[in-house]
Amino acid sequence: MEGDPTLCLRIFDLNCWAIRYLSKRRQERVRLIGDTLRQDGFDLVLLQEVWSEQDYSDLRVKLAGCYPFSHYFRSGVIGSGLCVFSRFPILDTLLYQYSLNGYPYMLQHGDWFCGKSVGVSVGVTAPLLSLSLQLHAEYCREKDAYLPHRLVQAWELAQFIRHTSKAADVVLLGGDLNMHPEDVGIRLLRGWTGLRDAFAEATRFEGCKNGCTLVPDNCFTDKSELLPFPLGIRIDYILYKAISSFTVKCEELKTTTGPAAGTDIPFSDHEAVMATLHIQRRGQPVGATLGTAGLADVVTEARTEVGVGLRAARRQRYSSGRMAVLALLLLLLQAVAALGTLAGLGAEQPFPKLSFCLLAFLALGVLVLAAGLHLFHTMEVKMLHGTEDQMWMALRALQERP
Amino acid sequence: MEGDPTLCLRIFDLNCWAIRYLSKRRQERVRLIGDTLRQDGFDLVLLQEVWSEQDYSDLRVKLAGCYPFSHYFRSGVIGSGLCVFSRFPILDTLLYQYSLNGYPYMLQHGDWFCGKSVGVSVGVTAPLLSLSLQLHAEYCREKDAYLPHRLVQAWELAQFIRHTSKAADVVLLGGDLNMHPEDVGIRLLRGWTGLRDAFAEATRFEGCKNGCTLVPDNCFTDKSELLPFPLGIRIDYILYKAISSFTVKCEELKTTTGPAAGTDIPFSDHEAVMATLHIQRRGQPVGATLGTAGLADVVTEARTEVGVGLRAARRQRYSSGRMAVLALLLLLLQAVAALGTLAGLGAEQPFPKLSFCLLAFLALGVLVLAAGLHLFHTMEVKMLHGTEDQMWMALRALQERP
Repeated sequence: MEGDPTLCLRIFDLNCWAIRYLSKRRQERVRLIGDTLRQDGFDLVLLQEVWSEQDYSDLRVKLAGCYPFSHYFRSGVIGSGLCVFSRFPILDTLLYQYSLNGYPYMLQHGDWFCGKSVGVSVGVTAPLLSLSLQLHAEYCREKDAYLPHRLVQAWELAQFIRHTSKAADVVLLGGDLNMHPEDVGIRLLRGWTGLRDAFAEATRFEGCKNGCTLVPDNCFTDKSELLPFPLGIRIDYILYKAISSFTVKCEELKTTTGPAAGTDIPFSDHEAVMATLHIQRRGQPVGATLGTAGLADVVTEARTEVGVGLRAARRQRYSSGRMAVLALLLLLLQAVAALGTLAGLGAEQPFPKLSFCLLAFLALGVLVLAAGLHLFHTMEVKMLHGTEDQMWMALRALQERP
Repeated sequence: MEGDPTLCLRIFDLNCWAIRYLSKRRQERVRLIGDTLRQDGFDLVLLQEVWSEQDYSDLRVKLAGCYPFSHYFRSGVIGSGLCVFSRFPILDTLLYQYSLNGYPYMLQHGDWFCGKSVGVSVGVTAPLLSLSLQLHAEYCREKDAYLPHRLVQAWELAQFIRHTSKAADVVLLGGDLNMHPEDVGIRLLRGWTGLRDAFAEATRFEGCKNGCTLVPDNCFTDKSELLPFPLGIRIDYILYKAISSFTVKCEELKTTTGPAAGTDIPFSDHEAVMATLHIQRRGQPVGATLGTAGLADVVTEARTEVGVGLRAARRQRYSSGRMAVLALLLLLLQAVAALGTLAGLGAEQPFPKLSFCLLAFLALGVLVLAAGLHLFHTMEVKMLHGTEDQMWMALRALQERP
């Protein structure tokens, strides 16, 4: 950004909800997104939930003229769904996969299979670090079983940003954080990194009330989910931070409001977020970090939730381990009985062969499943425990800070 | 490091081979390691393969006086085995888990279960970034099936170092890289990060010939593995790099040579590596990075190997998918036959019930296993493909460099 007194950067962020076979009118919407992006000429486009590589390839071909640089982040079974299009060169990319991301056996909540990650692209008029990401979904706000996993992700993300952003001038984060603005995860992420919320900082705002990105007016949203929130909820964010001797100011923030211009359908079940940032050299970045005391409170709150998750994971590890041991015992018992019969010890076979075999296979199945679960929950315990430790170290460092 | 003209830093690195129930004379050796560390007073101790948290706790208690700061990195099913002890405060830690790390069904090669990672500790007379790590083991040098995984790890490690080290003054890496000095993975890591090899740079060296750390003289090493290398091999390294306006010089490098002083056993099956570094302000760091052309060659070589791994992973994904489909077809066929019999279509049951049931359970078992394998290899393909893409991007950037 040398010799450029004010750089105006226009950013587009959208959770595209492009799941093959499942998302309604997917191909039509992807075409629509591509057309709009080509027309509007943003500088940087951060997309999430582009699960099909074919959709990405189609977009890339369509946008090659105005966004010559792009990257698709691959991970997990299905993919990360993240991609970035840019008018400026992307010099380097990096993928960071969260260590915890739901449970493989919760097939109805497909998060585990997506390998949710944060995709980092460096460059775009370097040194600008832009991150596109999505955190674990919240399926039930009242009884949010995934809160500890989402907090581990928010913590890992915050740590990752702290460690990778030091040489950047500006950090930009766009994505579906699956958290309301006042949630502990958002406060942790913002407090620990100093990232600022474009919605809160914008000089002008235009779009859905309160900046909501999941609104009942959108024909694709699940109305029952939004019943407690008649205005909708805000879970998609553009966050930013100036490092070194730059300042960033959000001049304008917009969200889409339902159907795209000239059509009857919106881009996605989420609304798009569009920000215009002014980046200037000189001047110290305005510190938006929470004070040490406020930050310690947030980290303590997050650590308590991670602790709750840790205890739950330990219980599940114990139950699955006990189940595996019981199944193993049953199998051994059957083996002894079978050997006894073979050796002619028993006068006759006491069980019908068919039930005996069925039982053995059932026990084997339970053993394999329970052992798999035990392994999985052991990993979960390690990661939650590790995060709790890291947060404790952070708290200690905060207390020792003058 | 302000106001400190020359800082002398003594580092100890050891793969401890402390696997519960499997490693010979483990407790005795861990005690010995603790005693030596307490006596010798290093500044920074990087240990690998401390698989038991109990061993870490014992070491921590013993070393609390001389190394008041320590951290144990938790990950995977068993743990990462990594820990760090330091005479200076550890300000922050971060764990980066490699996206690929062997196969869960290769139980005899336990790498997958360890969740191999790189543990980063920041601080220790900040800003010094120290990394402790271990890469995937090499089980057969002639037919090294894990080479693509190890290369993905080396690449991720190099990228991780590039992105996290920018604000550090000095980067220090100690660990068991499971690669010979001339291997493509080491050349990739060193070329892409500019890290320098303490053994090659040391003013004085004392220890096993050629700096070997796996030597036939050690009573715990597998002699048959070392047959092609009568002097031993060097796979444990201390690498370092000065950033900003510092210079680092390796004054002395030492390795242990078999039995520890006053005993009949060595610390581990690996030899320990000990370096004395002199860190000085002023002066430009001596560039040890390969020239652009040399670097492009290394990245190309590594990318070719990753491509070989990608094709193998695709084949395995295809075979496991086909196997799952066949098992599913068999199950469906059986279901149709059973329903037919129930509906009284067939005059009599053509198969004995027991074999019928056994076959069904067998098909079900094969289906579950093959589907699991298919998922696993799908993830493997994604990660190898993603790394290949990143390397291609790196090559493009290298070619465009003046």
